[in-house]
Amino acid sequence: MDKLEMRHTLLAAKARKQLSWEAIGSAVGMSPVWVASACYGMNSASHEVAHKLCDVLGVDSEAADALKAFPTKAWDEAIPQDPFVYRLYEVVGVYGETLKDVVQEKFGDGIMSAIDFTMEVDKVEDPKGDRVLLTLSGKFLPYKSW
Amino acid sequence: MDKLEMRHTLLAAKARKQLSWEAIGSAVGMSPVWVASACYGMNSASHEVAHKLCDVLGVDSEAADALKAFPTKAWDEAIPQDPFVYRLYEVVGVYGETLKDVVQEKFGDGIMSAIDFTMEVDKVEDPKGDRVLLTLSGKFLPYKSW
Amino acid sequence: MDKLEMRHTLLAAKARKQLSWEAIGSAVGMSPVWVASACYGMNSASHEVAHKLCDVLGVDSEAADALKAFPTKAWDEAIPQDPFVYRLYEVVGVYGETLKDVVQEKFGDGIMSAIDFTMEVDKVEDPKGDRVLLTLSGKFLPYKSW
Amino acid sequence: MDKLEMRHTLLAAKARKQLSWEAIGSAVGMSPVWVASACYGMNSASHEVAHKLCDVLGVDSEAADALKAFPTKAWDEAIPQDPFVYRLYEVVGVYGETLKDVVQEKFGDGIMSAIDFTMEVDKVEDPKGDRVLLTLSGKFLPYKSW
Amino acid sequence: MDKLEMRHTLLAAKARKQLSWEAIGSAVGMSPVWVASACYGMNSASHEVAHKLCDVLGVDSEAADALKAFPTKAWDEAIPQDPFVYRLYEVVGVYGETLKDVVQEKFGDGIMSAIDFTMEVDKVEDPKGDRVLLTLSGKFLPYKSW
Amino acid sequence: MDKLEMRHTLLAAKARKQLSWEAIGSAVGMSPVWVASACYGMNSASHEVAHKLCDVLGVDSEAADALKAFPTKAWDEAIPQDPFVYRLYEVVGVYGETLKDVVQEKFGDGIMSAIDFTMEVDKVEDPKGDRVLLTLSGKFLPYKSW
Amino acid sequence: MDKLEMRHTLLAAKARKQLSWEAIGSAVGMSPVWVASACYGMNSASHEVAHKLCDVLGVDSEAADALKAFPTKAWDEAIPQDPFVYRLYEVVGVYGETLKDVVQEKFGDGIMSAIDFTMEVDKVEDPKGDRVLLTLSGKFLPYKSW
Amino acid sequence: MDKLEMRHTLLAAKARKQLSWEAIGSAVGMSPVWVASACYGMNSASHEVAHKLCDVLGVDSEAADALKAFPTKAWDEAIPQDPFVYRLYEVVGVYGETLKDVVQEKFGDGIMSAIDFTMEVDKVEDPKGDRVLLTLSGKFLPYKSW
Amino acid sequence: MDKLEMRHTLLAAKARKQLSWEAIGSAVGMSPVWVASACYGMNSASHEVAHKLCDVLGVDSEAADALKAFPTKAWDEAIPQDPFVYRLYEVVGVYGETLKDVVQEKFGDGIMSAIDFTMEVDKVEDPKGDRVLLTLSGKFLPYKSW
Amino acid sequence: MDKLEMRHTLLAAKARKQLSWEAIGSAVGMSPVWVASACYGMNSASHEVAHKLCDVLGVDSEAADALKAFPTKAWDEAIPQDPFVYRLYEVVGVYGETLKDVVQEKFGDGIMSAIDFTMEVDKVEDPKGDRVLLTLSGKFLPYKSW
Repeated sequence: MDKLEMRHTLLAAKARKQLSWEAIGSAVGMSPVWVASACYGMNSASHEVAHKLCDVLGVDSEAADALKAFPTKAWDEAIPQDPFVYRLYEVVGVYGETLKDVVQEKFGDGIMSAIDFTMEVDKVEDPKGDRVLLTLSGKFLPYKSW
Repeated sequence: MDKLEMRHTLLAAKARKQLSWEAIGSAVGMSPVWVASACYGMNSASHEVAHKLCDVLGVDSEAADALKAFPTKAWDEAIPQDPFVYRLYEVVGVYGETLKDVVQEKFGDGIMSAIDFTMEVDKVEDPKGDRVLLTLSGKFLPYKSW
Repeated sequence: MDKLEMRHTLLAAKARKQLSWEAIGSAVGMSPVWVASACYGMNSASHEVAHKLCDVLGVDSEAADALKAFPTKAWDEAIPQDPFVYRLYEVVGVYGETLKDVVQEKFGDGIMSAIDFTMEVDKVEDPKGDRVLLTLSGKFLPYKSW
Repeated sequence: MDKLEMRHTLLAAKARKQLSWEAIGSAVGMSPVWVASACYGMNSASHEVAHKLCDVLGVDSEAADALKAFPTKAWDEAIPQDPFVYRLYEVVGVYGETLKDVVQEKFGDGIMSAIDFTMEVDKVEDPKGDRVLLTLSGKFLPYKSW
Repeated sequence: MDKLEMRHTLLAAKARKQLSWEAIGSAVGMSPVWVASACYGMNSASHEVAHKLCDVLGVDSEAADALKAFPTKAWDEAIPQDPFVYRLYEVVGVYGETLKDVVQEKFGDGIMSAIDFTMEVDKVEDPKGDRVLLTLSGKFLPYKSW
Repeated sequence: MDKLEMRHTLLAAKARKQLSWEAIGSAVGMSPVWVASACYGMNSASHEVAHKLCDVLGVDSEAADALKAFPTKAWDEAIPQDPFVYRLYEVVGVYGETLKDVVQEKFGDGIMSAIDFTMEVDKVEDPKGDRVLLTLSGKFLPYKSW
Repeated sequence: MDKLEMRHTLLAAKARKQLSWEAIGSAVGMSPVWVASACYGMNSASHEVAHKLCDVLGVDSEAADALKAFPTKAWDEAIPQDPFVYRLYEVVGVYGETLKDVVQEKFGDGIMSAIDFTMEVDKVEDPKGDRVLLTLSGKFLPYKSW
Repeated sequence: MDKLEMRHTLLAAKARKQLSWEAIGSAVGMSPVWVASACYGMNSASHEVAHKLCDVLGVDSEAADALKAFPTKAWDEAIPQDPFVYRLYEVVGVYGETLKDVVQEKFGDGIMSAIDFTMEVDKVEDPKGDRVLLTLSGKFLPYKSW
Repeated sequence: MDKLEMRHTLLAAKARKQLSWEAIGSAVGMSPVWVASACYGMNSASHEVAHKLCDVLGVDSEAADALKAFPTKAWDEAIPQDPFVYRLYEVVGVYGETLKDVVQEKFGDGIMSAIDFTMEVDKVEDPKGDRVLLTLSGKFLPYKSW
Repeated sequence: MDKLEMRHTLLAAKARKQLSWEAIGSAVGMSPVWVASACYGMNSASHEVAHKLCDVLGVDSEAADALKAFPTKAWDEAIPQDPFVYRLYEVVGVYGETLKDVVQEKFGDGIMSAIDFTMEVDKVEDPKGDRVLLTLSGKFLPYKSW
């Protein structure tokens, strides 16, 4: 079973069981965003988490092997088209240079890691319209001189 | 004075005055990220804020007119090259589909606005290496049916 | 049933039943353009509308589930090739900057939403050749300062 | 004076005179959108309109010659980046195929002209947020068989 | 039967019947170039012509329905690779600007329609090497001011 | 004087002298389309024609040297944007495969030369709207086997 | 049988028979490079050569029909990736402008035909490392003035 | 003096002195193609050759330093547009795969070097039209296993 | 069996046998990186090594024939997306010009061969985090003058 | 002084002083590759190193400020053209997937950092042709689960 089949299997099971990412995350002791990314095939799970995930979703252990495999990460569109994803791309385009300056002023020359990295999604209720709150946390990596 | 000249003028003044974005933001009553993006030419300022900014940076009021102008937002590279900005692009590529699913499960069919949108940068000290904390807040916009 | 199968099913049923988008729209209480876009897989329908649509077209309820699913919106060609669609792209290229200036002069710095958005098509008869009238209505979203 | 210089001259004059596109359009007897597009260099003006425009804006007749020249229409970005213009591009991507079907069902096989074409911008006040109304009118051109 | 299947069916029937485009065109009362483009799926035929074409080629009426369908026109390569087609692309690249100037000098600001458009192919025998004669005829469309 | 300067010089002289391409072509004994392409820098002229052209336009002989130079032919946009030129590109996209089939059926396997090639523009008056007639003539080049 | 199937059939037969391109070329009286390109689907063969080729390779005459068909020439990668082919592309990039100058100095304004064109491959033994000798011969085509 | 200035200087001197590449090559004891490529800035010359070249062309020794510099090789168009250069690109596209097969059958798995590489241009007179003969010689480099 | 099937067969066998690249390399007397690249289809193996590899992995000799075939090397993404591979691409972007200067200063004008080339991977344990050591060795190829 | 001016200044000074990267590196106590990349504008230097570098090269302290500035890293060509740099790109294309597998087998799921990263160049003399030895060392970063 490759990552693509795994993804179809897991998403179908999730729909059948009518479980939310929060419920699944909480059942396996991981964050909802990470759990979703593992099911989408964009992260590998430990042996233990992979099996817990399969138990919660009621799928057999072939999917656990696929969850444990190290993924080759790829996306279809260099410039995303779906409006949800495009807005994130636009944020990177509009604010990328600004963020680089603000972060490097605080931390020195370096980057925010996308590997030693976590992300959370929250809903902030607001009478003028609820807000999506994305929290990204990445280790700062200073450039090495040698 | 167009946005590009304005940007050179303001960044040079900032360097000369040795002011941080935090200090400038706090002096004009706005967030450091927003202030930086306005100085980079990616947002327009109100009359009042534009003039405060020019006062703080010690530049004349021609720059204030440029700060008030509505920008045409553009970026040089459809796929960013600088490692700092690329890592953000990579996050959108790797996690875009995941975030869409997690957010839409919570909020329904729609997007997180990149217009009614704010962003903060924080430094989280950590003995294993300090972390960059980015907090993005965007209004959820449900798709309209008609 | 995914959006692609749904689309084939619904368009085939529409052809079989010889119903126009206007007739279908009127039967389900929605606009013809929105109904067509939902059948093409570019918008999600409410439970009620999805089932009405399936009734009108005489297809079973599996299609209704697909109509309710939140779509990932994508298009094949970054620069469209079909002459009908290309002309719209050309209008955006030729008049985009002009529209930005005219709209922002009237409304301030911000955009016209493509999410809180509706569109209608009308036929205007004219002895020199009938005209297509497209009416686009989008909520104005002012940029937030923070 | 080429179209680019003309544009700088005319936009600077407009700013100096603090005239809106509506005021200019009404002074020269043309629509605000068309007037703006001519000043941006995307349409040619008749001798009479070109001279009226120069009078209204207080610029000399060299600009009138440039306004009368037939433009080579071009835009910088095949996929627009400014959020205002991108949203229009997104509408074409998301709804292009839908519009083709709805229009061709009403008119037969053919296209909506982008040459025999007019466009208006209106502001619709709304307590939930004002709306931008774009009205596009293009002659329907049936494909010729031969 | 979609346009792609139709095309395979019609081209195979043409090969089987050993009919030239001239012979087919003459049998159905249309030009060889138009008939070929309809069989390739790039134009829609009237009810009458579609059925005549199917009779001439000896295929059943399902193909006639496909011939009547309004095509979505697309081509595989933005820059063509086959040397025959590339040479036409090269002509547009090398002479496009020249043709625009020569035509607009004669007709005013506007374009040659690719919709109200016909094209013929002739063979001109020549002892130094036969020549291909392409004749393109398109309605001139003046830009509208409004 | 390179081709670009030459072009500016010659087009300015043409405007000053208010000569049409037809008048210039007839004065130098060449076709209007070829003359225009040489002035645009897309073809080289013989010594004699180059000097006649400079005489007719009243420019000095430095331009004649530039007219005689062998050009490097290039165009700005792989996919043209100006509507006049785009329509020609669209014709190549929509009809390229059709033309290849119709021509090769008549001539055998080979191409129409874009080098041993001529082109004319005519205006065909028509009460329903004047038509642009483009006539392209290229030597047929059969593929060599060896 | 289309060109792709033909190619698989012929290359498999060649491998089975353990024949070199030289041996096949010599058996059918054509050059090895041309024979290989015909088997790869990039050139059409005469009736006689097509049948000889099928005899030599021991495949049935359906392949001969495919060999006689006029190919649509296309390649997968606008910029080749395989190192063998890339080096040729690099030669065109590095030396293209140089070759144009050297050839046009000798021949006048024009091109080397890629249609009336032949090519040979030879092996030149050399103690410092054998060398590949490619010999390209193309008819010179002077640009036509008209 | 960088390579670009050097190139303008050397080509202008060559035009002034009315020397052919053959004459220059023969004067400095190198091949005409190599000499041209060095003057175009695509190869570096030895100290001795650089000074000879400057003597022959009558330019001062600053150009010799530029000729000796190691170039960064680049070309403007990934897909060339000038018809002369495009035909070479087309040859690589059409025959690249064929050449790889023919060469590797003769030499084993490896490539023809574009570094240990020479090229000659010859004119072959022919009553049916003169032919350009390009001779490319590159060392065969076998892939290393390790 | 083509290279793609071969790859699936060999990687599946490797997983089944739970052999590391080091173990396989050592069993067949080749480097782990080379062995992996041959199994991925990016290098051809000698008869002897191909058969040893199949023995070690317990697959039949059809795979050995595929291992011996000369590959057409290609990769999916001109700009890689997987973070592991992207970082290598970034290194080439950031340091390519630097390496060219440092290497050419030491060796003269030329390149490092990617054909006569070997590569090793080592793990360097480090309390602050283990390090990946990549060692690339390529023959220096001086540019030839001629 | 921006990074571009700094680079011109420092490279000119290096040429004038006839210093090698090794000599400069050794004088400032840093590696030759790192020193070159800092002078090319691709890394920032510490206060101390920046001043030492300026001393060694005999340039004034404005360049030291530019050396200390945090660079925006960018490169001109997404697919490099210079043969030296292209070969490195080709290595990433051909071996990227292989390296990912070999490294992740040794280290687990993660990447080799391009930030906590060093690189050395050595010359290995060899009678069959000297070899370039590139040694890349990057910290292994395991993907975080959360």
